[in-house]
Amino acid sequence: MFSITVRDHVMVAHSFQGEVFGPAQRLHGATFVVDATFRRAELDADGIVVDIGLATQELNAVLTDLNYRNLDEVFPGVNTTTEFLSKLIADRLVDRIHDGALGDGARGLAGVAVTLHESHVAWAAYEREL
Amino acid sequence: MFSITVRDHVMVAHSFQGEVFGPAQRLHGATFVVDATFRRAELDADGIVVDIGLATQELNAVLTDLNYRNLDEVFPGVNTTTEFLSKLIADRLVDRIHDGALGDGARGLAGVAVTLHESHVAWAAYEREL
Amino acid sequence: MFSITVRDHVMVAHSFQGEVFGPAQRLHGATFVVDATFRRAELDADGIVVDIGLATQELNAVLTDLNYRNLDEVFPGVNTTTEFLSKLIADRLVDRIHDGALGDGARGLAGVAVTLHESHVAWAAYEREL
Amino acid sequence: MFSITVRDHVMVAHSFQGEVFGPAQRLHGATFVVDATFRRAELDADGIVVDIGLATQELNAVLTDLNYRNLDEVFPGVNTTTEFLSKLIADRLVDRIHDGALGDGARGLAGVAVTLHESHVAWAAYEREL
Amino acid sequence: MFSITVRDHVMVAHSFQGEVFGPAQRLHGATFVVDATFRRAELDADGIVVDIGLATQELNAVLTDLNYRNLDEVFPGVNTTTEFLSKLIADRLVDRIHDGALGDGARGLAGVAVTLHESHVAWAAYEREL
Amino acid sequence: MFSITVRDHVMVAHSFQGEVFGPAQRLHGATFVVDATFRRAELDADGIVVDIGLATQELNAVLTDLNYRNLDEVFPGVNTTTEFLSKLIADRLVDRIHDGALGDGARGLAGVAVTLHESHVAWAAYEREL
Repeated sequence: MFSITVRDHVMVAHSFQGEVFGPAQRLHGATFVVDATFRRAELDADGIVVDIGLATQELNAVLTDLNYRNLDEVFPGVNTTTEFLSKLIADRLVDRIHDGALGDGARGLAGVAVTLHESHVAWAAYEREL
Repeated sequence: MFSITVRDHVMVAHSFQGEVFGPAQRLHGATFVVDATFRRAELDADGIVVDIGLATQELNAVLTDLNYRNLDEVFPGVNTTTEFLSKLIADRLVDRIHDGALGDGARGLAGVAVTLHESHVAWAAYEREL
Repeated sequence: MFSITVRDHVMVAHSFQGEVFGPAQRLHGATFVVDATFRRAELDADGIVVDIGLATQELNAVLTDLNYRNLDEVFPGVNTTTEFLSKLIADRLVDRIHDGALGDGARGLAGVAVTLHESHVAWAAYEREL
Repeated sequence: MFSITVRDHVMVAHSFQGEVFGPAQRLHGATFVVDATFRRAELDADGIVVDIGLATQELNAVLTDLNYRNLDEVFPGVNTTTEFLSKLIADRLVDRIHDGALGDGARGLAGVAVTLHESHVAWAAYEREL
Repeated sequence: MFSITVRDHVMVAHSFQGEVFGPAQRLHGATFVVDATFRRAELDADGIVVDIGLATQELNAVLTDLNYRNLDEVFPGVNTTTEFLSKLIADRLVDRIHDGALGDGARGLAGVAVTLHESHVAWAAYEREL
Repeated sequence: MFSITVRDHVMVAHSFQGEVFGPAQRLHGATFVVDATFRRAELDADGIVVDIGLATQELNAVLTDLNYRNLDEVFPGVNTTTEFLSKLIADRLVDRIHDGALGDGARGLAGVAVTLHESHVAWAAYEREL
């Protein structure tokens, strides 16, 4: 199995509902350093998993929709946890793959994984098949 | 599949028995930067894999039992390799999950993985299901 | 010249005023990974710059006052830029040094520097003498 | 499942053929920071996955064959992408395992994975069973 | 003293002349992860050292002139060592500061430093005043 | 001012004397990831600060004398703190510079700095002129 991963980041505000979150129930924020991984069993005719330039561009496009936002307004009533956002970004990347934004070859991808680093000591990830 | 990972570290002395270990047969030591990963198929009602605060606290508790120790005394006759310690820490985290120390929701976890970085150029890992 | 550095982090919300900030004028947030450096010309009688345990504890205390906060409320009318926060944290550490919170030996420190990493591709720093 | 990983690097020149590569069609170069992972279900009699010293030595030997080379000359007509090189290095490590270069115990390995970091924001990986 | 630093990277081919370079006399290549630091004694009216967006944009512009190039053709007869390139990039950033590309406020900068990471185990830096 | 830095590591056991060290008074250990920086005002005739191959080799030689050792035996009665070891390694590198081990050109070096990372959250450094 082959994979390529590209990294970008996003800076957001949000708050959480539920006692389990302790002080994170207050409005606060995070930088998420985001790693998006694309997997496939065999390389395409160019010898790549997917065009790394397109992968970088599309990850950046997905993150731009979230960047410098208060997620409490973008997703009212939702706990936009690091886990939730990992899945959201992975799913949006998959939508773009299906739309052809990552090139025709990207339709051969087997899976996508997204990791969000919320600090140097904590991160979350979500992986799914295509 | 979702996961969250938390990082901490531990500083220990030990020595190894067996020619394969070369100069590491002498009493020496290591800082292990420890990443503990918790996996589950679906998020719980709060939108999380497990309470990251509890995960951090319980990893720290497991490491405190080893920290600033000579492992030759704690585990006499055992080669406390990076691989061995990865499994030990993973198993102790699983015990704490079963004891409820990571919260009731943590009983829904699918697996645990532990990575021990012994330097910037070498690390070991162990993963298991619950 | 000797130094020791300890690392911790803080997660905050804030917004900026001024066209130069572009989309960062909106309410957003950041994880700041914070490195606090303590400098002195000679080691103390124990062979250290400062007690690394106390340094870690006092940095954490300074960050706890900011953690999980909306800085627009804590510092109304102020652009709480990464640069501004670097100086704020450095100055508060110096106050604690003068108060004796880092031990009597810490009064021999020559300087303090604080670096705030706002992402994997951008950071700010402030350094001052004591 | 257990694993150990060792890290080294290699510095090469190359160019790519195909419009998808854009400016990377020109002769350019890369530092690849290479992580080689060795997996096995159970530890051997010494309590290890494989001798980390031998693993480091054999990864270095594989990389030395590529280091400070123009890959356009070493692999004429081939797009030596990060993905391609990940597989090449993994396969060469497997050859060395089969040749006994990583020790008799290494014949019990279950799989090998190789990750090549081409920058701080992009990497590729290839994993295979033995 | 305040500073901000932004990170980007560049991928080039080159070779060196001189026995001291050993196998690096052959045509090879490198990824340089580039950190550009901007220093000033006091923050400007917006509370910043320099517009981090402009700093990122101008560093990228300087690197684009070098990216995906064979430096033996761009700088014939020159050993384009990591040290040499650190100074080249710093000097070009200073030119852009003087041209106003980093904003009027940037004319108040006290110094610039550039670090080029050629691998995870080696880097070079150059710093100068303005 | 130019500099180059090379990185290596060392794994040691030791204990500390003095109440300030708390549990670190027990025999424990550490991995120190060591960065050695060499500074000079102007590049030499080859366009370098110092031969990076020789710098790597000599740093490794200095560390080999300490590696896989119990420092309580090597330096009896001494608190081999991270700060102490930073100076020790820097001084030994300077001795090797004076002995010509880093080449004739290295005699033009202006200074040396050594940083020892004892974990992902703590490090010490020592810098001196030549």
